[in-house]
Order: sequence, then structure tokens, then C-alpha cells
Amino acid sequence: MPKIVRFYQTGAAEVLKIEELPLVEPGEGEVRLKVAAIGLNRAEVMFRQGQYLEPPVLPSRLGYEAAGVVDAVGPGVSGVKIGDRVSTIPSFSVGAYGVYGESAVVPAYAVASYPEKLTPSQGASIWMQYLTAYGALVEFGQLKASDTVLITAASSSVGLAAIQVVKSIGATAIAVTRGAGKKSFLKEVGADHVIASDEEDLVKVVMDLTGGKGANLVFDPVGGPLLEKLAAAAAPGATIFEYGALAPEPTPFPLFAALGKGLTFRGYTLFEIVRVPEKLARGKQFVYSGLESGLLKPIIDRTFPLASIVEAHKYMESNQQKGKIVVTV
Amino acid sequence: MPKIVRFYQTGAAEVLKIEELPLVEPGEGEVRLKVAAIGLNRAEVMFRQGQYLEPPVLPSRLGYEAAGVVDAVGPGVSGVKIGDRVSTIPSFSVGAYGVYGESAVVPAYAVASYPEKLTPSQGASIWMQYLTAYGALVEFGQLKASDTVLITAASSSVGLAAIQVVKSIGATAIAVTRGAGKKSFLKEVGADHVIASDEEDLVKVVMDLTGGKGANLVFDPVGGPLLEKLAAAAAPGATIFEYGALAPEPTPFPLFAALGKGLTFRGYTLFEIVRVPEKLARGKQFVYSGLESGLLKPIIDRTFPLASIVEAHKYMESNQQKGKIVVTV
Repeated sequence: MPKIVRFYQTGAAEVLKIEELPLVEPGEGEVRLKVAAIGLNRAEVMFRQGQYLEPPVLPSRLGYEAAGVVDAVGPGVSGVKIGDRVSTIPSFSVGAYGVYGESAVVPAYAVASYPEKLTPSQGASIWMQYLTAYGALVEFGQLKASDTVLITAASSSVGLAAIQVVKSIGATAIAVTRGAGKKSFLKEVGADHVIASDEEDLVKVVMDLTGGKGANLVFDPVGGPLLEKLAAAAAPGATIFEYGALAPEPTPFPLFAALGKGLTFRGYTLFEIVRVPEKLARGKQFVYSGLESGLLKPIIDRTFPLASIVEAHKYMESNQQKGKIVVTV
Repeated sequence: MPKIVRFYQTGAAEVLKIEELPLVEPGEGEVRLKVAAIGLNRAEVMFRQGQYLEPPVLPSRLGYEAAGVVDAVGPGVSGVKIGDRVSTIPSFSVGAYGVYGESAVVPAYAVASYPEKLTPSQGASIWMQYLTAYGALVEFGQLKASDTVLITAASSSVGLAAIQVVKSIGATAIAVTRGAGKKSFLKEVGADHVIASDEEDLVKVVMDLTGGKGANLVFDPVGGPLLEKLAAAAAPGATIFEYGALAPEPTPFPLFAALGKGLTFRGYTLFEIVRVPEKLARGKQFVYSGLESGLLKPIIDRTFPLASIVEAHKYMESNQQKGKIVVTV
């Protein structure tokens, strides 16, 4: 029987249990993967804590991203066959279809092939990060080469993906990280400028870098009091994408900056892309083309074995990582 | 010498003083009006209190909207001549060019003729209200007949203008007013539905009225804790325009609703329209055409003589008005 990760109560990483559960047959419109690698996401930590948009039904599976080989196909599925080497696009209930385990059943529409040159660990590290950044910045933000993009939580997998997406368009990426420890890393991976927000005056540095104009796109998963600073660092007419809620504090709305500069604050999640077929198709094309050219290249920080899933989650919560955390199976 | 309203300190309505000041000659690119009527705006109350986007330089004039006849034209002005019957489009410093008084000098670009059939009081009651509503809802919000628009502070001049703009496009207007006292008035002037927010559950009523979908455009000058309710009453993908800051309390950002529904919060002021010639041209055309057809028709609540400017401001602050407050000169 395959090993599957589930949790019976919300809470700290230790609630994650590895169990041997019967192999599940895929239902109508579903396929089953023999999982080779799992990409971890902050969303799963929040889901485990009961703080995600979707509340868990206990006991619950979890996990959005896996790469593997299709080993069973349910009725009514076309376009996917046994033996296909695929990874999952997060576009389903993270609880009902959680992919943490040796076997995962997912909707057939949620699997996509990944380039031959990528390892399974890389294959499990592309869709969440690149489609999230693509959707906000390119699909909705209409990113162009003359834009300056401020990217917070820049060492996260989505933050790094955003830097690559911005550079692939020829725009300017200003990365924000808390401590100075990750500054040189962020420069190496392509950021034009890096601000250590614990040690530098974010608003002043952005204004200095932009000749007093400010950033015209902001990409932020943090919220909380940081949003006031981001609004102050934004250019007139800028759009601030909020794609997460990592800050434990409430988020004040920067109303006067919004009025004075005509700012747009856009709540955004990947679901706006993956649930609309034509948007998803454009996004996949963008990602495939970037992987092909090498302008998009997944950065994996560290891999853990499945037996260390608790440690892997703890590591994510430690905020030490510089890129994707992957569990190999 | 013409009577002019100025204030020497920020504060309550009583700081407004009527003084006789020398007649001013218009400078380069400016024209002078013999003022017949002044349209009052909430912005001027906030400016008088020192709480507006623009801080006053004391002693300061004030006032955005006047109708009158051009009685002097400065150098370099074309397209405006002595004897023209015009009103002012708020597109200038409210302090430097304040129009409260018997005579006002304003930039030539800020005057526009108004239809013959309108009185000067009506002429002083069109640009702020209709261009503000037009800019958010039509220019940026792309208002269409299938939209449901939630309009707060609906009995204000801009709120009433928004109801008319919404109905002129054939969309659905849900007006929000605090007490029940103005409900029948708001129905009479065209609102499809009216919610008395002090007595009814705003979110529940909007959801009932929209079959559980919510409003897809929201037009709000209040902010503060109301914004959480507006976000809860908004449909997935909705845009919430914030065009003022009337609430004395801080405004929390409804981050979870923003993420869950992909909401856009757009800080907006009329300056985004009047400072961009092609946007202003489209807006003027929209307003002229609506005034012509009668779909837009200024609603004047009450007029005061210039000598009662303090009472007129107090009346605005009492929130009793149902439409524009005008001072006749």
C-alpha cells in the first residue's frame, strides 16, 4: 500500500502523519500518478494550520504539486495516458486531491507534461511558482520592459520565479528580503537591486532607484503593515498585487496613498488563471517557452525524503530557504 | 471690491470669512469669472479642516465649482472670451484658485460652457459630480448594462450623479444610505434598490438582491470599517472604487475577501480624468450628451446666499442634504 501524508488535526508540522493507505482507483475524469517528487508550497503550511482559504476536512490529505508517471486513468479521460511523465498544476482542492505521498489521484485537467531536460524535482517546481508570477505580472499586470517591479518575499519560490519572469520581459526587478543574508544570492539569480528591509529604508531606496517615481508594479504575498510601505514606494497609477497573507498582523488599507496616487490593490490567486482555460493556455505557453529558452529555470533549495515531511515543513517555516523545497519519493 | 471667502486657520465652518479684496487681473492662461453660483463639495469641507489631499497655504481661498460669466481674459488664452457663460471643472489647486466669492480667477482650461437650459445653480452642479462618477464607473470601470453597482453615501451630489450615470447605461443601481429617512427619495431619483445601512444587513440584502453573486462595481467615498462590508458584498472579480476618506476611523484592508474573490480596490480621484486631455474630452462628451438627453439632471437640495457660507458648510456637515448645496451670488 502506498505511503500517504495526512493530518487529523490542524496545527504545527508534527500533525503530518505518514500512513499506508489502499491504492485508490481514479474516478471519472481523474488520473493517478506514481509520484517521484513533491514541490512544497506555503499554501500547504497555511492549510495544515487551518489558515488557508480552503478549510481542511479532517483527516485531510494535502499538497498541490507533484511530478510523476501516470499509472492509471479513469473513465472519460482523453489526452493523458498511462506512462505519461507529468506534473500537477494546482487547480483543485488541496485537501480532496492532496498529492503528498507515493501515489496521488488528481483531475486529468490538472496534469501537464514538463520538458525532458527537467528532473522530476524540477518538474514539481514549475507550475505554482511560474503561473502565479505570470498571472499577476503578465496576464493582469501587462508587464513591459519599461516597468519597475517590486518583489517582496523574494527568496521564496514564487518570489524567485517573479524575478525570472520580470527579467524574461526585460523589465527591472527590485527584490525585497528581510535580512542581508540573502542579498548576494538574489543578485546572482537576476534581481537588478536588492533591499534588505530589516536594515534599509524600503521606501527611500525604491525612490532613489527610480528617480523619485516609485515602482509601477508590486508583487507581495505578505500584507500586514508592510502594505503601507509598499504603497508609499509605488508610482502614481501603480498596481499592487496581494497574493498571500503571510503577515500575522492585520493589514491597514493605505487610503490616502491610494487616493493621492490612484493606486490599484489587486487580491490575486493562481485560481484566476488555472480555472479559465484560455488564461491557463496562455500561461502554460509562457512557461514552456521560458523553460525552453532557459530564461525560466527552477531553483531548488533543498530536497528531503518523504519520511522527513515534518522536517521539510519546519524548514519552510524557518524562512531559511532560497528557492523551492522538494520532497523526493 | 468683490466679496471673497477665505480662511486664516483650519477648523470648523466658522473659520470661513467673507472679505472685500481687490479685483484680480487674470494672468497668463487664466480667465476671470463674475460668479453667479457656487457648487459646494465635501472636498472643500475637508480642505477647510486641513484634512484634504492638498494642504492649505493660509490665508487660503477655497472652492472648486462656480458658474458665471467671463469678464476678463489673460494673455495667451484662446477659445474663451469675455461674455462666455461657463462653469468650472475642478482641475486646479482648490486653494490657489478657490472660487468661493463674487469674482474668481481660474485657469482657462478649467472652464467649459454648460447647456442653455441649465440655470447657473445647475451649471455649478455638474462637473464634479458627473465627471467623478463617469471616471470611475465608465472610464475605468467599463460599466455595462449587466452590471450591478453598489453606491454608498448615495444622497450626496456624487452619489446621486452615480445613480444617474448607472441608469443612463441601463445597469442596476443599489443605493446605500445610513438612515431610512432618504430611502423614498433615492427610489424617486432612480435607484433600483435602497439599503438603509444603519437598519439593514448590507451584505445580506446585496446578496439577496443579486441572487448570491454580489455587486460587481462598488463606488464608495467613505472607507473605514465599511470597506470590509463592501468587500463582503462584492462579486468575484469586482472592482471597489474608493474616492474619498469620509470615515474618521482607519480603513482595514479586506485581504481574505480580496484573495478569495480576486477583488480590485482602486483609489480614485477626479484628477485622473481632468488632467488627461483625452479622458477629459470623453468625460465632457458623456456629460453633455446625458444633460442633453435628460438622463443626467442635476439635483439641487438647497441654495444659500453668499453671506451664509458658514451655514452652508454646516449644512453640508449635517448630512441632511439630498443633492447639491449651492451658494448663489
